[in-house]
Amino acid sequence: MGTEFLRIMDSEEVREIIDNIKIKKEIGEVTLEKAYKRVLAGDIKAEIDLPPFNRASMDGYAVRAEDTFGASEDNPVILKLTEIVRAGESASKNVEKGTCIEVSTGAPVPEGANGVVMVEFTENKDDGIHIHKSTAHGQNIALKGSDVSRDDLLLKSGTLLTHDKIGVLGATGIKNVPVFKKPKVAVISTGNEIVKPGEQLEYGKIYDINSLTISNAVKTCGCTPIYSGVARDNYKDLKSKLEEHLDADVIITSGGTSAGAGDVLRAVLDDMGEVMVHGIAVKPGKPTMIGLINDKPIFGLPGYPVAALMVFHVFVSSFLRKMASMPEHRKSDVLKLKISRRFHSSKGRHQYAFVKIENDVAHPILKDSGAITAVAEADGYFEVAKNVEIVEEGSEIEVMPLEIY
Amino acid sequence: MGTEFLRIMDSEEVREIIDNIKIKKEIGEVTLEKAYKRVLAGDIKAEIDLPPFNRASMDGYAVRAEDTFGASEDNPVILKLTEIVRAGESASKNVEKGTCIEVSTGAPVPEGANGVVMVEFTENKDDGIHIHKSTAHGQNIALKGSDVSRDDLLLKSGTLLTHDKIGVLGATGIKNVPVFKKPKVAVISTGNEIVKPGEQLEYGKIYDINSLTISNAVKTCGCTPIYSGVARDNYKDLKSKLEEHLDADVIITSGGTSAGAGDVLRAVLDDMGEVMVHGIAVKPGKPTMIGLINDKPIFGLPGYPVAALMVFHVFVSSFLRKMASMPEHRKSDVLKLKISRRFHSSKGRHQYAFVKIENDVAHPILKDSGAITAVAEADGYFEVAKNVEIVEEGSEIEVMPLEIY
Repeated sequence: MGTEFLRIMDSEEVREIIDNIKIKKEIGEVTLEKAYKRVLAGDIKAEIDLPPFNRASMDGYAVRAEDTFGASEDNPVILKLTEIVRAGESASKNVEKGTCIEVSTGAPVPEGANGVVMVEFTENKDDGIHIHKSTAHGQNIALKGSDVSRDDLLLKSGTLLTHDKIGVLGATGIKNVPVFKKPKVAVISTGNEIVKPGEQLEYGKIYDINSLTISNAVKTCGCTPIYSGVARDNYKDLKSKLEEHLDADVIITSGGTSAGAGDVLRAVLDDMGEVMVHGIAVKPGKPTMIGLINDKPIFGLPGYPVAALMVFHVFVSSFLRKMASMPEHRKSDVLKLKISRRFHSSKGRHQYAFVKIENDVAHPILKDSGAITAVAEADGYFEVAKNVEIVEEGSEIEVMPLEIY
Repeated sequence: MGTEFLRIMDSEEVREIIDNIKIKKEIGEVTLEKAYKRVLAGDIKAEIDLPPFNRASMDGYAVRAEDTFGASEDNPVILKLTEIVRAGESASKNVEKGTCIEVSTGAPVPEGANGVVMVEFTENKDDGIHIHKSTAHGQNIALKGSDVSRDDLLLKSGTLLTHDKIGVLGATGIKNVPVFKKPKVAVISTGNEIVKPGEQLEYGKIYDINSLTISNAVKTCGCTPIYSGVARDNYKDLKSKLEEHLDADVIITSGGTSAGAGDVLRAVLDDMGEVMVHGIAVKPGKPTMIGLINDKPIFGLPGYPVAALMVFHVFVSSFLRKMASMPEHRKSDVLKLKISRRFHSSKGRHQYAFVKIENDVAHPILKDSGAITAVAEADGYFEVAKNVEIVEEGSEIEVMPLEIY
């Protein structure tokens, strides 16, 4: 009744196999408008000085600092106002001895001036601008290039372009940004019983869940899912579906991996490429398959929704993130929570379970792998090491949220 | 030289004003394919039973449990195989006394059967199927509706549709999903010195940064930014820009809020609506303005990039998330880190500072509000309460990451 498992492997061994899969990274270019959440594929150097000119950092008067020496509240220096320069404008005159030019915050400091007196320390009178405080060289001026000099390294290759970093790119006037291409991930459900949501559900059929969850989960890893529909559970159909998607960077299937009657992925992979993993000592997820077709990784997830989703999180997602050059999850993304009840685990294999989080307590979800309500309630999952049989009520567990947002 | 601040308010008072802004929520509908990261605007009840039929949960033989009583390794019960049913198929025969039907995992259990014997406990021989173990009523069968009954509540209104929850929707066959409409947020930069990235940079001009950072930050709050370009720093231009975007749900401007020469937003808001806040006792971000035009909130951020981004995070983002029905940040999103050096704060106002995180240590970024390198290095920010003047080196601070991913 079908093929046997290749050899049940420990999860550590499987992780090593996955770590050794060769990754090819391609580089593309996007406009600044489309750069959000992409990953830089090159160092970004400043194309201009910032500020691009000597810039007034306060509203006030641009002066020659030496003209203001000795100025005080009782004994102001009086300077002749020759021009007013707002932000975005430029002065037509220079600041000569005995004169000043009014400047707004952000305006270029006119030639000849080497300090800006804040407006608070001045008075505009009939006989000129009364300066009540002396100004030091460079005061209230952000010198050209003082923030960034042309060709300074601004952002390193590999930086995830969050909203703030996009602004940094914008500041230097860059229009096109070198980024890693998003890996394309074909997502295929297999099974004669699977029907696309929204279609008529005949007796004996169920709606496709895994394509939906896995496609959207692929997005969280910085990859582009290619929703590839349902393959029937026979050699010919699955093979042609795989052939159709060999232009993708990764293929993820679900279903058809059990060592039972409906197992065809194994046969197809044996012919088209190689099977590296078939069977992992984890629960759920034992009938997981990993193979290669021309160096292209194929992940065969179990058919049950809970198992498919769990195996994706435990084994596939970090590979996809690495492929997409996305940063690792932060250590702090793991939540340390008390478990609400005693949890029994199977000896001899790693066990993973979904939990519902309520008031900072983790409630393990004790339902079978086929239960969609398990997914409906799940907020995250935790791992029980293979030598642990019982997790006591109230003990602290490490919960990985299903999605960071 | 321009208007005065309305009245410098404490941040608590400002938060209360923001909390009291009326929010109008609109409901729309999207297809399942577009539902990812949207927020449910209604309870989702199951439209079908799950499983939709009595489903075999193991590969094996569907039997009448009573036929197998007494079966053992030495003394098998022999049943006549009448049919084979794979997943997705349905049986043409019923299981009668003394017969069995082979079923695959996921196949519907034929009429007449009330248990499934795992294939491991059977042998297929010439004289029939040898059953080596008795089966209990209901064994290895997931009964119709046992996971979800039609009309059961599956997902509550307000649920953020992460990848896993999309799968839950798919399982019940739903095609269109009621969701809250994404609030539209117009983002306007003001200033005569501001030029769009990629354009020619004349003397005295700088590239627009705030539109880019704020537009993309708006996305993290579940809203749709409307990039609205640059308004010149004069009454007429800013007014017409605001009028042009009154169909947005929120308007965010940056620049032109200082109590100085270039201040026009205050004048425009005074005429078109009302100014509720002008001046907050925070650093950076003092010249922040909040107003209403026909109940539509207008946030006037400072022009300096560091200040604009900080005020967005500290005052605007939680409002936008609430408006978009997005969940609050998790408590665990706040990182508890040691600070790398002594940090001085201004007495009498809340201070916020960006930090760079390296090896789980927070390095405060000590640059002025205009420095784009401050943004380039920033990973998160922390708050210093208004009565604190010094944060000692090595003490623990709470860092909010700029973006969760």
